[in-house]
Amino acid sequence: MPISSGNLLVAQSGGPTAVINASVSGVIQEAGKHAAIDEIYAGKGGILGILNEDLFDLNEETNWSIKGLRHTPAAALGTCRYKINFAKDPEGAAKDLDRLFKVFSVHNIRYFFYIGGNDSQDTANKVHLEAVRREYELRVIGIPKTIDNDLPHTDHCPGYGSAIKYNAATVMEIGFDVGSMSTDSGACSIVEVMGRAAGWIAAGTVLARRNDNDPPHIILLPEIPFQEDAFLDRVKETIEREKYCIVVVGEGLRNEAGEEIAADKSRVDSFGHPVLSGAAERLAEIVQGRIQLKTRTVKLGYAQRAAAHYASATDVNEAIACGEAAVRAAVVEGKSGYMVKIVRVPESENYQWKTDLHPLGEVANVEHLIPRDWISEDGFSPNEKFVAYARPLIEGNNEIPSQNGLPHFIRLKQDPVEKLLTPRD
Amino acid sequence: MPISSGNLLVAQSGGPTAVINASVSGVIQEAGKHAAIDEIYAGKGGILGILNEDLFDLNEETNWSIKGLRHTPAAALGTCRYKINFAKDPEGAAKDLDRLFKVFSVHNIRYFFYIGGNDSQDTANKVHLEAVRREYELRVIGIPKTIDNDLPHTDHCPGYGSAIKYNAATVMEIGFDVGSMSTDSGACSIVEVMGRAAGWIAAGTVLARRNDNDPPHIILLPEIPFQEDAFLDRVKETIEREKYCIVVVGEGLRNEAGEEIAADKSRVDSFGHPVLSGAAERLAEIVQGRIQLKTRTVKLGYAQRAAAHYASATDVNEAIACGEAAVRAAVVEGKSGYMVKIVRVPESENYQWKTDLHPLGEVANVEHLIPRDWISEDGFSPNEKFVAYARPLIEGNNEIPSQNGLPHFIRLKQDPVEKLLTPRD
Repeated sequence: MPISSGNLLVAQSGGPTAVINASVSGVIQEAGKHAAIDEIYAGKGGILGILNEDLFDLNEETNWSIKGLRHTPAAALGTCRYKINFAKDPEGAAKDLDRLFKVFSVHNIRYFFYIGGNDSQDTANKVHLEAVRREYELRVIGIPKTIDNDLPHTDHCPGYGSAIKYNAATVMEIGFDVGSMSTDSGACSIVEVMGRAAGWIAAGTVLARRNDNDPPHIILLPEIPFQEDAFLDRVKETIEREKYCIVVVGEGLRNEAGEEIAADKSRVDSFGHPVLSGAAERLAEIVQGRIQLKTRTVKLGYAQRAAAHYASATDVNEAIACGEAAVRAAVVEGKSGYMVKIVRVPESENYQWKTDLHPLGEVANVEHLIPRDWISEDGFSPNEKFVAYARPLIEGNNEIPSQNGLPHFIRLKQDPVEKLLTPRD
Repeated sequence: MPISSGNLLVAQSGGPTAVINASVSGVIQEAGKHAAIDEIYAGKGGILGILNEDLFDLNEETNWSIKGLRHTPAAALGTCRYKINFAKDPEGAAKDLDRLFKVFSVHNIRYFFYIGGNDSQDTANKVHLEAVRREYELRVIGIPKTIDNDLPHTDHCPGYGSAIKYNAATVMEIGFDVGSMSTDSGACSIVEVMGRAAGWIAAGTVLARRNDNDPPHIILLPEIPFQEDAFLDRVKETIEREKYCIVVVGEGLRNEAGEEIAADKSRVDSFGHPVLSGAAERLAEIVQGRIQLKTRTVKLGYAQRAAAHYASATDVNEAIACGEAAVRAAVVEGKSGYMVKIVRVPESENYQWKTDLHPLGEVANVEHLIPRDWISEDGFSPNEKFVAYARPLIEGNNEIPSQNGLPHFIRLKQDPVEKLLTPRD
């Protein structure tokens, strides 16, 4: 059921990715095709910005900037980690929703698109339910985003393909480097990647492996409890065979007691705080301390979620399509309370995908881990089922204009929308 | 004076770069043009491999592989850190040279090209001097290589441009990411890059800065003693202005006593070894401990010297040209005892360069640091003189073929040359 014309509001939430702006570009360009949409506003800094009535006018941006969003990393609209949390603060949450609908109402917002991961889909769902409760005419669609790839129901998340493409290329390059320096005394290199609960990102580096004995030789996933002795045995075997060993570890790797190995409570820094230098540093200590093997670490940190210079063209196209599909679902189909998902066409010879919708209520706060049967029996590597799943997601290099030898990213001018409400307290 | 025909030997030494193989490709392709050169051999694993008579035949490699060296990182010939060290072990050094010339002689090596940094140029010089002393007809030319950019007399070193192009893009991307998440409480991100004595690599990230207040906001160079209070003041100022702060630190940053800040001897790990988690981790401790600012670290490690996927086309072309120039110097001009250097054509409107030769004796063991007047007065950033120097070095993206969405690097088949000597003891 199409609704009478009104304004559109789009916002981003949670940790950025290399392609989260591509979804914004999809939203804007699709919205431009529909007469039902008047103004196209952005919430500056996610839901928190909307609560502060910090909106800006995307119709004032140049067409060149809108196109540039397709290759610009990070959250061009700004982002936040703010939650509307009834469990923790029912009064505050009710107040937030009240304020939110004041902002929507005064700016005649009738379409709301929220791009984010688990928490953001939960927020979108709350906004949708509140609109229904208030009988406020609003179409709410969530657009998936997360390099962690831990959203349920969607085949994968926009942002994931680019993160693992960059990480896999990096691991391949480090493998060539360390392998070319290997001597009889051996060398170990440990690459720490993101992923606190789910190992999707760590697993993705398996794509660097063209032949059985290629690096990464060991991939440690948060889903599989860390077994120190078995790990060291595997390192030793690899060194004997290859003279070097490349290990990838997801930052959230846990021991059998469920404690993150990076959190070594026995040590404090010079300020009395626990030392949390990370999973790779902790593993390096173990390898050097127990088997006296020279070990170096790499911690990619934010680089891996922002690496637009090596983004996957497949990922970018899917991110754009998710933005477009959200607008079509809301405007053409009159849907609300759904998240756009990516569906893989089964049994097709080449990778084919389409977008579909999934009820937000079934998405929010559910975490999607790697199935155990996608991981080798010994737990040290994803297997061929994972590879078949992940390989298509990194296909194609996204085109990116250069300026003085570096990527030419865009910055939106963010023309503010006039505030009509008194500031919230 | 051209010499009678003979065989060519090329080897790589020290830490690899993204373009060290491009120089090998230049050597091979130029050598193919000269009738004076019969066989083209590689020393497998640098001078150490040559001592072991581990040679392989580069004429047996496919043309496709030789071309592929132009985009393949790491040392395709293998590398080592072995030194011929008269000061430390005069007897061993003499024995090494003796063995080396047995290998040269039995394989009729008349042209020797050694690609590397300071230590490798020193080795090349020793080999040259020994050939003169023995009256063994040999042309020795060093080819510069190092991401550290610390070789004297050459305008810059092949490998450096690609390292700083990748690092600058990474810092730019991290800057967009962290900036888009910034809140009033602020966030700090510290990126650790290579460079133990010289800050060339850290300095190169300044190229990410398009406007005065762009990241990186603070660049800590090993050339400038670390002053903790001044640093924290600068972090606080940046947070007040920008709400976020991106810091780049060269791994070898030292305090005023000349001690590396990463080496905190007061702490030991669970094996009793000193904790050496790195300069970025140490700085993060200081920032979090003293001004309670949320801080995250990135340690690029080997990734930065192997990042062929974002190599500078200028750098690759120069690396190839250095290899070609070495062969021409030896074969056409009959020179020996020189390193190829890159000379910047002064006063030219656009960046122009050529190769020239410099006596090896003046190159070896001299370390080239950033001139003080290329660094801002407060020491927290390279200045416009550095930028004018470094900017042309990152121009152009090297073309790289893809396979399954990742770089298609080549591996040489390394057809061994028959050993003619008894193994050394």
